[in-house]
Amino acid sequence: MKNTFGNNITVTLFGESHGEMIGAVLDGMAPGIPVDEVFIAHQMNLRRSASALLSTARTEPDLVKIVSGVYGGKTTGTPMTFLIENTNTQSGDYATMRYIARPGHADYTAEMKYHGFQDPRGGGHFSGRITAGLVAAGAVAITALKGKGITVGTHIASCAGISDRPFGDLSADLAALNQKDFAVLDPVAEERIKAAITNAKMEGDSVGGVLETAVTGLPAGVGEPWFDTVESVLAHILFGIPAIKGVEFGMGFALTDQKGSEANDPFRAKNGQIITETNNCGGILGGITNGMPVIIRCAVKPTPSIYREQKTVDFNKCENTSLQIHGRHDPAIIHRARVVVDSTVALALCDLLATRYGADWLRNQD
Amino acid sequence: MKNTFGNNITVTLFGESHGEMIGAVLDGMAPGIPVDEVFIAHQMNLRRSASALLSTARTEPDLVKIVSGVYGGKTTGTPMTFLIENTNTQSGDYATMRYIARPGHADYTAEMKYHGFQDPRGGGHFSGRITAGLVAAGAVAITALKGKGITVGTHIASCAGISDRPFGDLSADLAALNQKDFAVLDPVAEERIKAAITNAKMEGDSVGGVLETAVTGLPAGVGEPWFDTVESVLAHILFGIPAIKGVEFGMGFALTDQKGSEANDPFRAKNGQIITETNNCGGILGGITNGMPVIIRCAVKPTPSIYREQKTVDFNKCENTSLQIHGRHDPAIIHRARVVVDSTVALALCDLLATRYGADWLRNQD
Amino acid sequence: MKNTFGNNITVTLFGESHGEMIGAVLDGMAPGIPVDEVFIAHQMNLRRSASALLSTARTEPDLVKIVSGVYGGKTTGTPMTFLIENTNTQSGDYATMRYIARPGHADYTAEMKYHGFQDPRGGGHFSGRITAGLVAAGAVAITALKGKGITVGTHIASCAGISDRPFGDLSADLAALNQKDFAVLDPVAEERIKAAITNAKMEGDSVGGVLETAVTGLPAGVGEPWFDTVESVLAHILFGIPAIKGVEFGMGFALTDQKGSEANDPFRAKNGQIITETNNCGGILGGITNGMPVIIRCAVKPTPSIYREQKTVDFNKCENTSLQIHGRHDPAIIHRARVVVDSTVALALCDLLATRYGADWLRNQD
Amino acid sequence: MKNTFGNNITVTLFGESHGEMIGAVLDGMAPGIPVDEVFIAHQMNLRRSASALLSTARTEPDLVKIVSGVYGGKTTGTPMTFLIENTNTQSGDYATMRYIARPGHADYTAEMKYHGFQDPRGGGHFSGRITAGLVAAGAVAITALKGKGITVGTHIASCAGISDRPFGDLSADLAALNQKDFAVLDPVAEERIKAAITNAKMEGDSVGGVLETAVTGLPAGVGEPWFDTVESVLAHILFGIPAIKGVEFGMGFALTDQKGSEANDPFRAKNGQIITETNNCGGILGGITNGMPVIIRCAVKPTPSIYREQKTVDFNKCENTSLQIHGRHDPAIIHRARVVVDSTVALALCDLLATRYGADWLRNQD
Repeated sequence: MKNTFGNNITVTLFGESHGEMIGAVLDGMAPGIPVDEVFIAHQMNLRRSASALLSTARTEPDLVKIVSGVYGGKTTGTPMTFLIENTNTQSGDYATMRYIARPGHADYTAEMKYHGFQDPRGGGHFSGRITAGLVAAGAVAITALKGKGITVGTHIASCAGISDRPFGDLSADLAALNQKDFAVLDPVAEERIKAAITNAKMEGDSVGGVLETAVTGLPAGVGEPWFDTVESVLAHILFGIPAIKGVEFGMGFALTDQKGSEANDPFRAKNGQIITETNNCGGILGGITNGMPVIIRCAVKPTPSIYREQKTVDFNKCENTSLQIHGRHDPAIIHRARVVVDSTVALALCDLLATRYGADWLRNQD
Repeated sequence: MKNTFGNNITVTLFGESHGEMIGAVLDGMAPGIPVDEVFIAHQMNLRRSASALLSTARTEPDLVKIVSGVYGGKTTGTPMTFLIENTNTQSGDYATMRYIARPGHADYTAEMKYHGFQDPRGGGHFSGRITAGLVAAGAVAITALKGKGITVGTHIASCAGISDRPFGDLSADLAALNQKDFAVLDPVAEERIKAAITNAKMEGDSVGGVLETAVTGLPAGVGEPWFDTVESVLAHILFGIPAIKGVEFGMGFALTDQKGSEANDPFRAKNGQIITETNNCGGILGGITNGMPVIIRCAVKPTPSIYREQKTVDFNKCENTSLQIHGRHDPAIIHRARVVVDSTVALALCDLLATRYGADWLRNQD
Repeated sequence: MKNTFGNNITVTLFGESHGEMIGAVLDGMAPGIPVDEVFIAHQMNLRRSASALLSTARTEPDLVKIVSGVYGGKTTGTPMTFLIENTNTQSGDYATMRYIARPGHADYTAEMKYHGFQDPRGGGHFSGRITAGLVAAGAVAITALKGKGITVGTHIASCAGISDRPFGDLSADLAALNQKDFAVLDPVAEERIKAAITNAKMEGDSVGGVLETAVTGLPAGVGEPWFDTVESVLAHILFGIPAIKGVEFGMGFALTDQKGSEANDPFRAKNGQIITETNNCGGILGGITNGMPVIIRCAVKPTPSIYREQKTVDFNKCENTSLQIHGRHDPAIIHRARVVVDSTVALALCDLLATRYGADWLRNQD
Repeated sequence: MKNTFGNNITVTLFGESHGEMIGAVLDGMAPGIPVDEVFIAHQMNLRRSASALLSTARTEPDLVKIVSGVYGGKTTGTPMTFLIENTNTQSGDYATMRYIARPGHADYTAEMKYHGFQDPRGGGHFSGRITAGLVAAGAVAITALKGKGITVGTHIASCAGISDRPFGDLSADLAALNQKDFAVLDPVAEERIKAAITNAKMEGDSVGGVLETAVTGLPAGVGEPWFDTVESVLAHILFGIPAIKGVEFGMGFALTDQKGSEANDPFRAKNGQIITETNNCGGILGGITNGMPVIIRCAVKPTPSIYREQKTVDFNKCENTSLQIHGRHDPAIIHRARVVVDSTVALALCDLLATRYGADWLRNQD
């Protein structure tokens, strides 16, 4: 499979940045899940232009039309198709640079793969815009998880070298984050990060950062030892998001400087439940959930589209040249990528849960 | 699928630490690849007990028997089955701790998933020993890649807080690493790391580290934009290796503090080829290879089995208790995990190449 | 996977009979295949209302809109999305029979599977109308095969007990069939079959038949011994077509009364090529193509929607009742199913060819 | 995937007729299913030499060794590996005919696919012997189904033109069949079929037939509309069995001569349950089970290995030649194929049930 992810609940993405429509097909979702169009629109807005001043986003509203798989306001259990029109395509911006590889973009690799038949306008099928379909499908997955007491939330753990405070009370933090359009927990850090993004914009440059996600309420015993570990499945879909270049769970890379006696999470019995005192493993042992919150961090590289002149090649002529990109650019996408991460995590977890508990489990909301 | 990885070239793992046999089935490999039993044995030895003094490894020799898929010393194209007997199982070590969850291990999550039916001896199916099958199958994948001019190699970039020198001339470095059983490039760092591991052992503790892998010779244009990016596929199989808690590509998390103008790799034309001046993206743009070396780093957590007494629970009684693990333990597994990483990377790349170029490409070694 | 078929070239179907749109996503098709909208429209017409007098078909024109995966008139290699609006939905026809299971239809099984959340109008996702997406995607697959010298064609081998003549010169027969909208080779049989269908209509009844498909030009060596035999893969997708209840290859069930000495096809060398004198095996030995034409026969049950009163149940009340179906009905669908069979066979073969020869093979049309 | 079947419960086959071992890996089976080695041996015997006088079977006993996935006599939920040694390989029989294509066999297609690297001895990986692994894995699947009240059974509906009586009381018939090693219900037909097989043997020839399978106790609502219909999934695995050239459900091809008013099965309410008066659809509507028995018929071609001299080619020289096969041959395999059909049907149904009800459902035997 190429543009389809999942085993029992699958999402298929399609579309090009400047084509007629983009979208997604979500298949295998349990029947009877409420389809909340207001919530979907809310998620779409988070992706499109969170804190619009910070992004030179396209102005199209990203209206999602669901043309199948819904009846009477609920999922039917058959494939849901989400369509989003491309209404604001400015192909003129891109026409002159058909063979000029934008550094950090997929222009050159797309040529190597598709031999010149790819749609080159605005990154084509490689555009970050294609994540809109993921967000639409993901909104249904987030709703389904919520019905089972499972909550997903993400904050900007750092951006441009500025760190947010760590997660504290997850229940409160996730509730707060899911109300915010710029997902930073500490107000001082939020202002500093926004300023850094604005500053990068003025410099014609861009910044990246780290997104940290927590999932609460997952039952223990989900995942497979080889090879569909929870880490494997989540990393698989997360590395599908353009700009993500690193994924870690729990303490991740920071574990590598620890001793085993520090890294191991002591188990404890508490109120008849088994928990761990610390959560360095990020809620996953042997690839399987242990009932503690799942903690994920993703490295988001700085947006590759910058105004500054860059060295590159004309890959048709195989000649050196330089390039100054005009048109729309984001000095950062991390604040928009956050909802894409939430969406992909929710989709992958729904798939793992359906594998473990069957096709109807997400519906049975007792 | 659960214990099977891959689309066109698949590997299936089976076995338990103290069962009769463990092994793997490798399916879809091109016919006509030489099966070099000496090389397979070499790789098995790397996994088993690299620098044996540093590991309290089981003394069994890990002889691999290939019972299908080979004829006249070459792959037939039909499934290859690798069997490895468990000859040195000391079940007595584990009998008393049936319900005592070892911190950092999968004992508790296995119970949640398999309801007490799992084989509890020595970690059962979750044991790191199961990677032996991956290494046997991976040896064939490494040979197939070599026939196409593709080389995989890994060093211990850091362990116990001590760093190796960075990769330099990859051709020389990979050649050197693939001759070494303790994969550190800088001799001074090597001695310091070995000393740190020995020290951890004396303290009844353990250490982790970072493995850095390079792959040279890959053609540009391999991978899929959504969702089978090269990063997705590699991370999927790598996160199947127990103890890996983070995976990053190119500069990975270090990219998150950079500006776009620093992170973007300038393209250049050189001798009629298109290269990039830097390789911050790790040879992958838009999820697709660009012809530069693929660079991967994996976070290996410290070995969870330590001698020190640890707090934990009896999950049968749901009561707090403490635990001191006796028996065999490794103060580090990073030097052994290195060959598992090479093997999994090779297997995943063979799969991506077969998807792109067809079932016979790996054989046609012109 | 549920509504997705294929390994390397996949087709995903979505939509409900009376929803807003139905369609398909075709992923993995090689880049550079011409997208011939006239041919697609031609195929859609064959499906919709071949010999309209014989069908009480919906009058909508089945216009296909391709919203992704095409650029400059050719496939890009990224997912193609085919959308078809439902313009002529008469939901009133169905409202009163929400819980009355139409015999031979999926009303009751859909209820068992989707617990009442399914779209009940016009068969919902189970409607034969959903095959329109298959035909649109299949038209691209047929074009791709044609570029490699591979031809697919189907005739009505029998209908209502009346047999067409057997295949003769396949080159001429397939060319003729692919020009006809009522796919019978023998003109006398054609008239008799049409009369039988008209007669069934007048009786408020329906008829079925056998579709026989031939594929010429396939290379030898395609398919997998276990479990993706050519028969397995073709039967899998063919049994996805509603109304198909049997699939056989070559002589199929008629082989069961033969002796081995009659059934075995003698190999012969002819002009430097290896052929078989007979083709009882239907071009497939050991699950793999032998270079002879692939021959497939599908049993199409009589259309279950008939005017006659039928005994059935109200599955909500679990009570016996009777039912007379009003609205649109076809006395036969075999003449329309023929293009669905061609489409599915072409899609499955493209997938098998991409598995064997890689992602670009269908494009390289030398 | 190539030699692996299934989504949630998978079976992977490996081995060659004259290699060291053959076998299978069964993954995803629920934990806690009893592993009954006596029953497995019984099934293996049915496959090997049902009514030995009728077969010139190899004399090896087909001992199955299970080397993983079992603990304390029950499945663990991790992969089960079944190994069967090849103890009685007579490679000398085959050496002289390396390039002589046996008509009806895969010798030539294997050469086209594997380019001469395949193991040619005794049919290699294409040998019917490889079904032994299927039978071993299938025995566990049959046991799991039995625990849920689901019974599978198969009779020889016809052989050499002689028909068994049709199924009557399925409960009694399946119980009787599963006690018999020659699966014919009517004693007179049984004697006539045996005589016909013996006669074919004396003539140096072979016969085929039709196997009819019934499955009782399946819940309604299992299967997927597109493309994993129950028919699709069963046909996929059944067409993996060598010699099967046709598969039909319910009345199958006989439906094609019926009117809709005859073919449609009237629904009825009976004791609070919904049933159908007839079962022409074979228990499947819209690809989904309706709770009635699933009925499957498979066309088994006559054994291709016959003593009579046959015309064929030397495919190395591309020259006509003739061939007389010596060594072991079966005048019929239909009586042995019956247990392979039962096994594959059980495996595929377990997979569909795990998809619908989750990973543990087969265990929870309340």
